[in-house]
Amino acid sequence: MLRLHDHLASGNGYKVRLLLAQLGTPFERIEYDLVNGETRTEVFVRDVNPNGRIPVLELDDGRTLAESNAILWYLAEGTAYLPDEHFARGQTLQWMCFEQYNHEPNIATVRFWTMHGQVDLSGWRTELVADKRRQGHAALAVMEEYLAGRAFFVAERYTIADIALYAYTHVAPEGGFDLDPYPTVRAWLERVASQPGHVPISRG
Amino acid sequence: MLRLHDHLASGNGYKVRLLLAQLGTPFERIEYDLVNGETRTEVFVRDVNPNGRIPVLELDDGRTLAESNAILWYLAEGTAYLPDEHFARGQTLQWMCFEQYNHEPNIATVRFWTMHGQVDLSGWRTELVADKRRQGHAALAVMEEYLAGRAFFVAERYTIADIALYAYTHVAPEGGFDLDPYPTVRAWLERVASQPGHVPISRG
Repeated sequence: MLRLHDHLASGNGYKVRLLLAQLGTPFERIEYDLVNGETRTEVFVRDVNPNGRIPVLELDDGRTLAESNAILWYLAEGTAYLPDEHFARGQTLQWMCFEQYNHEPNIATVRFWTMHGQVDLSGWRTELVADKRRQGHAALAVMEEYLAGRAFFVAERYTIADIALYAYTHVAPEGGFDLDPYPTVRAWLERVASQPGHVPISRG
Repeated sequence: MLRLHDHLASGNGYKVRLLLAQLGTPFERIEYDLVNGETRTEVFVRDVNPNGRIPVLELDDGRTLAESNAILWYLAEGTAYLPDEHFARGQTLQWMCFEQYNHEPNIATVRFWTMHGQVDLSGWRTELVADKRRQGHAALAVMEEYLAGRAFFVAERYTIADIALYAYTHVAPEGGFDLDPYPTVRAWLERVASQPGHVPISRG
């Protein structure tokens, strides 16, 4: 059985859980305490992910694959969640790269710091958080503009690009990002949440 | 003919130029002045990339694809630079995601700021740069460890994962990152630079 090295509050882990649920693929989940460094141990770095992070997908034969979007791509290949057409595949990866570069480091990081409260956000990090808020809102504005007149990010259908971007957008308010200024994004969030087999982030 | 919206000093642009050179695919290049915001204009954002960044690949029919690693994937599909085997493809994308999340935002950003000198790096950004240096070295250390006993990142052959990671690693000293502590990485850099059809970053 597939094994997911995971953390329940992680949007990156949730991306994989959501796709696995929609694919109807059974898996077992191993929960890690990120705040206490359980993914930074010598054993984890050696046997699971050299980069010391979850999620990691472990196959039946023990091989491991890290990086949420690489796992999504691996699992979605040959399914309805990843288009076959060459250019549409490129666009799918384009929006997944946008998510990891422009969205996640700002919106997810501020949410993580806000939820766990273990990082000292005074001093220079006051400016850092303000900068991440600006950049997070810039990413949301790009999404708002792009989704105008579109149902989904790629090929007018639900793909892993939507899963990747949904994960941290729908919980952005937990990091203090108000979604009121983004009605098109909010309509898209509802569209994603109404897809067959959808599961919430809190479900292990 | 393919058209690449580009900036010559950009490692992200270089990834695409390098692969196109090795594929023997002709293309024309449009150079943008990033410091003066030429990729943030209303026309660029509307017609080229909603996210206001280069590189962007423009096809003969005018369709555009953004994000360097998505462009690499699109161009490499069906060629020797992207494995056919399912798990090896996942690993290729894993290392490309690592590059965009752990490597580029630290090493490339510090290099860009160092080269252009337009961002005020005093005040809170003194700490930000120090943090990016720490994280950049952490990424280099992950590469050093992983490459021990390996010739390349995936499947013991040169792939777009190597191209993606080479782009900003080989110019890391321009951002003040000393590569002396990473002999395995330096040997891999030489291996990549000796691949057939290799071109330097400065070649337009």
